[in-house]
Amino acid sequence: MRVLITGAAGFLGSHLCDRLLAEGHEVVGMDNFITGNPQNLAHLAGHDCYEFIRHDVSNFIFVPGKLDAVMHFASPASPNPNSPYGYVNLPIQTMKAGALGTHNTLGVAKAHGARFLLASTSEIYGDPLVHPQEESYWGHVDPIGERSVYDEAKRFAEALTMAYHRFHDLDTRVVRIFNTFGPRMHINDGRVVPNFIKQALQGEALTIYGDGQQTRSFCYVDDLIEGIYRLLLSDEHRPVNIGNPVETTILEFAQTINTMTQNEGLKFEPQRRGEGDPQRRRPDISRAKEVLDWEPNIDLVDGIRQTIPYFREKLSLQ
Amino acid sequence: MRVLITGAAGFLGSHLCDRLLAEGHEVVGMDNFITGNPQNLAHLAGHDCYEFIRHDVSNFIFVPGKLDAVMHFASPASPNPNSPYGYVNLPIQTMKAGALGTHNTLGVAKAHGARFLLASTSEIYGDPLVHPQEESYWGHVDPIGERSVYDEAKRFAEALTMAYHRFHDLDTRVVRIFNTFGPRMHINDGRVVPNFIKQALQGEALTIYGDGQQTRSFCYVDDLIEGIYRLLLSDEHRPVNIGNPVETTILEFAQTINTMTQNEGLKFEPQRRGEGDPQRRRPDISRAKEVLDWEPNIDLVDGIRQTIPYFREKLSLQ
Repeated sequence: MRVLITGAAGFLGSHLCDRLLAEGHEVVGMDNFITGNPQNLAHLAGHDCYEFIRHDVSNFIFVPGKLDAVMHFASPASPNPNSPYGYVNLPIQTMKAGALGTHNTLGVAKAHGARFLLASTSEIYGDPLVHPQEESYWGHVDPIGERSVYDEAKRFAEALTMAYHRFHDLDTRVVRIFNTFGPRMHINDGRVVPNFIKQALQGEALTIYGDGQQTRSFCYVDDLIEGIYRLLLSDEHRPVNIGNPVETTILEFAQTINTMTQNEGLKFEPQRRGEGDPQRRRPDISRAKEVLDWEPNIDLVDGIRQTIPYFREKLSLQ
Repeated sequence: MRVLITGAAGFLGSHLCDRLLAEGHEVVGMDNFITGNPQNLAHLAGHDCYEFIRHDVSNFIFVPGKLDAVMHFASPASPNPNSPYGYVNLPIQTMKAGALGTHNTLGVAKAHGARFLLASTSEIYGDPLVHPQEESYWGHVDPIGERSVYDEAKRFAEALTMAYHRFHDLDTRVVRIFNTFGPRMHINDGRVVPNFIKQALQGEALTIYGDGQQTRSFCYVDDLIEGIYRLLLSDEHRPVNIGNPVETTILEFAQTINTMTQNEGLKFEPQRRGEGDPQRRRPDISRAKEVLDWEPNIDLVDGIRQTIPYFREKLSLQ
């Protein structure tokens, strides 16, 4: 297949490029580098089956040649308001990537007769009132909250994708991605995994906001990419949760990181932006198991072990 | 003020044009007539303070001259799947009007330094789990349901409007419009008011889907326009519900129409599309009362009395 991947220079986009190339496909990467990092793709320069187009997906997209699939991964994705990559600091770009970008990439897929895969998110569930979240859960999102620029853009993107499927009979897929970690996350992205690993490698106490009892379900990136690849090859048009259902409290997670890095110390600070910051989120992955025969098989400790060298190298270069 | 009104040929847009002209403002109407009706604006031809631009708001908008306000009312708005005007039959256009249209009209407002008013909807509350709905309620919407093309487009439009307010300091307003009725509704739009009046004037039994115990809150169009006009002149940036909080069951409503038209008979049919069709929706209008000193003062019977002649004339022309 020849596959267009938008957001190719991002954390997930770049791993997806690697995987598709490893499977023998041709990849056309696209990114405008607002939050994507060219270094994530540097190793692909000169690869026979890889080409790159620097372009903002909110503008009309033209890709010469045939395309068999379009995977729309372009969007700021960090919820951290203190990060320059945080979507609350890039509100208009985030909404444009989600709405205009999805409209344009759907248009490309339609023009090429290609299948389309939308990178959606567990954020469409908002601050969920049911646990774990099945795909049939409608979510609980504040339409005008600060985080709505991401949540509502992704909900809109899902609705538009389903409209193209229903109305134009486009061959679409929607993956709802839960918390993922691994190499190529922004070290200053502000999310809990890079924060903790960075602090631990620098010998600092890990900062916990609130009492640390809020939970996250962390999926290692290789597991996630496997699930997305299987979805791409499947015939499933309904949204599919891909994530790790093993719930860990932030406190347990901090203690694990400290143990693995021989680091010590925790410091507790008041909950940040409690409004809109979900206390719990955990995927129900029954559909992925049933339809894709997929479940994660890399546990948190193994995943962290594979992630630490990346952050160690990044820190040594800073 | 010189005011751009998109969706000017629609039911609400055309009444808004009339009201603004009556208040001494200049109006630039815009419509692409997908669901708008040129006849709704025919009486304004030649008016000194009125001009019209035929244009699709999902394409870049240019308006020569100054603008003091932009009011974005363009969108298919009928939930009826049996109507050619129903948004489920115009899914892509509906999503484009909500996302690209809102992006473009916000851009016009920003370029002109004009205030911006978004026509949002009670549909952003979806199938609500609380009654009545305050503006702080986050709603209960299926992001991939058939109706999501409208609901999610409007939620996105609100989020984008608030992002422009917060990030670009644009002077914005958001009105959440509840069920409204009056002259210039599409007679074949399929919503309950035109359906009942049409059936009654034709001497047919009124069709009730389900047991008729589902409720609606109907606001007469003049009341609604008054509320929107006050909001435009206010400094309120938060969303404001405008609608009539008096709840009427569909059954009561049918009986009222029959009485007023000396018609007889009701026929009960199975609930249509129960999925997604809200059983109840009623505005909490505390904010509108407090901030705008507004509440509706035309009751249902008076409103229907003022609406019947319009439908009678339309029917005689069919």
